[in-house]
Amino acid sequence: MPSANQPGLPKRVLLREDGPREGFQMQQQVFPTAQKVELIDRLSRTGVKSIEVTSFVRPDRVPQLADAEQVIQAFTAAPGVRYRALYLNEKGFERALASPKIQPEGYVLLAASEEFLKRNNNQTLEQALDQLETWTKLFSKHQLPFERVMLSTAFGDSFSGRIAPETVLNLCARLLERCQILGLPPQEITFADTTGYGNPEAVKKLIGGFRQRWPEVAVGLHLHDTRGTGMANVYAGLELGVERFDCSVAGLGGCPFAKGAAGNVPTEDVAFMCAELGIETGIYLEEYVETARFAEQLVGRPLPGKLKTGGLLIRDA
Amino acid sequence: MPSANQPGLPKRVLLREDGPREGFQMQQQVFPTAQKVELIDRLSRTGVKSIEVTSFVRPDRVPQLADAEQVIQAFTAAPGVRYRALYLNEKGFERALASPKIQPEGYVLLAASEEFLKRNNNQTLEQALDQLETWTKLFSKHQLPFERVMLSTAFGDSFSGRIAPETVLNLCARLLERCQILGLPPQEITFADTTGYGNPEAVKKLIGGFRQRWPEVAVGLHLHDTRGTGMANVYAGLELGVERFDCSVAGLGGCPFAKGAAGNVPTEDVAFMCAELGIETGIYLEEYVETARFAEQLVGRPLPGKLKTGGLLIRDA
Repeated sequence: MPSANQPGLPKRVLLREDGPREGFQMQQQVFPTAQKVELIDRLSRTGVKSIEVTSFVRPDRVPQLADAEQVIQAFTAAPGVRYRALYLNEKGFERALASPKIQPEGYVLLAASEEFLKRNNNQTLEQALDQLETWTKLFSKHQLPFERVMLSTAFGDSFSGRIAPETVLNLCARLLERCQILGLPPQEITFADTTGYGNPEAVKKLIGGFRQRWPEVAVGLHLHDTRGTGMANVYAGLELGVERFDCSVAGLGGCPFAKGAAGNVPTEDVAFMCAELGIETGIYLEEYVETARFAEQLVGRPLPGKLKTGGLLIRDA
Repeated sequence: MPSANQPGLPKRVLLREDGPREGFQMQQQVFPTAQKVELIDRLSRTGVKSIEVTSFVRPDRVPQLADAEQVIQAFTAAPGVRYRALYLNEKGFERALASPKIQPEGYVLLAASEEFLKRNNNQTLEQALDQLETWTKLFSKHQLPFERVMLSTAFGDSFSGRIAPETVLNLCARLLERCQILGLPPQEITFADTTGYGNPEAVKKLIGGFRQRWPEVAVGLHLHDTRGTGMANVYAGLELGVERFDCSVAGLGGCPFAKGAAGNVPTEDVAFMCAELGIETGIYLEEYVETARFAEQLVGRPLPGKLKTGGLLIRDA
């Protein structure tokens, strides 16, 4: 038997699968639409409840995702699964709204590292905070809840170095104050370790501090395993009762040729660890492992997920 | 700045490098002696304090390690580094004693899974316990301390499935009682997760239970990262104050072709996580990362260590 659920650990967690988006946006090659669709269709049969299928970006800038609409057209939506898509601006948001099968998330992108924000979103921190008004109005107009703030580089990055939990909490204070004034607070802050600057104690300090000040706002974690601390950071989050994790099948994502870029923690490895800790995920491990192996074949290089090689445990002794 | 040392976390830990032994015993190919020697010599310049350089096994059974004596002859011993070698029987122990540069460890191999013990050591559990007398006498004769018991499959294996911490603690009780009678208790029990059956809560239960009953015996962890929980298990160990970890440069070990076999947690990733947690290891990360990259080139396939790809953090912000 797996360990009984421990005090502190949550009873169940939501694993959000970001592989199809994370995996294909950074690859050197452009994958056929049919393969992307097959990956999504396989994921739809694994018990996972939330899948990010693509990103609405400019086709001329990111040709790898130029087929976003075709992918959405072609995959088979399974009942009980939420399909999401990333957007970076209003144009992308409109494409998300116009897409069948997609249940758009009301979210805002922010980063603890201003230089990262400038390079990735072409915004200063002040501009991003100012834009909250536009976004919250858009969400209200389309009767979408403000589901989350994706806070990138929440532990640091190669522009700013390590960023202390206190600094991030101060940013959260500014952010949540603005949202309060706008009358639409986010339901969740997703702290993203974008390039492996996090460690388990920093995770605990940040989340512990956040919980103390804003117990009404849910916490999510989005952890790229760039330097080997990913799974330990997941465990630290679980110890503090975090119930939402963004993951990536087989650890898909990042780029083997770009220094510092690694995929999210592998969904099936996180699901396995949760199962062993007595935490429900709703995920069928066998199906996920098969899908992880498929993802690996698809990209044609070894992916970091471990369970797909190690295999499931034999039946309980 | 890295996080300050937390209550519970140790101030410093000993990372024992097992890569040269773990890495070359299971490879499909036989590596040239000179390459093994170069790996050891590079490791000797990383600040690591303990290196297992080879294993004294039968050359006809394990041709990969037939050059044990030549490797030992050829590497350059660095001051302050302890060089170890594995042995499985008295003949191997005698080879260890006869080897220059090697400081043999007085240890005994045991396993929580009896079937594993039978297949790996050709012994029943009772026979292994009976042999304690022979070993302790040998250690005394050669004025060696009884340094540790290597307890394999301490969380289970594919023969026995999961093994409960209580079962392992009962085995420890039998073991330590015998040693007490023989008048030579071991200084440490090294709990080995041989094939990825461990999880962070099981680590805590086992070590917590052990500490309560035998606070005078040190605890070590030897964690193969077969199913992705390795680094989380390290962190769970650190949370309980464990100060000794067996690791493997770049995660060397296991076999890409044998199901269920994976290397130990990567030494440089563990050292990085420790550094970020404010725990001293004495290891120079830059040199370790270089050595991990060398190990990868040497075996000619991607090795699991993350830091060698992710790179060190930029200077503190």
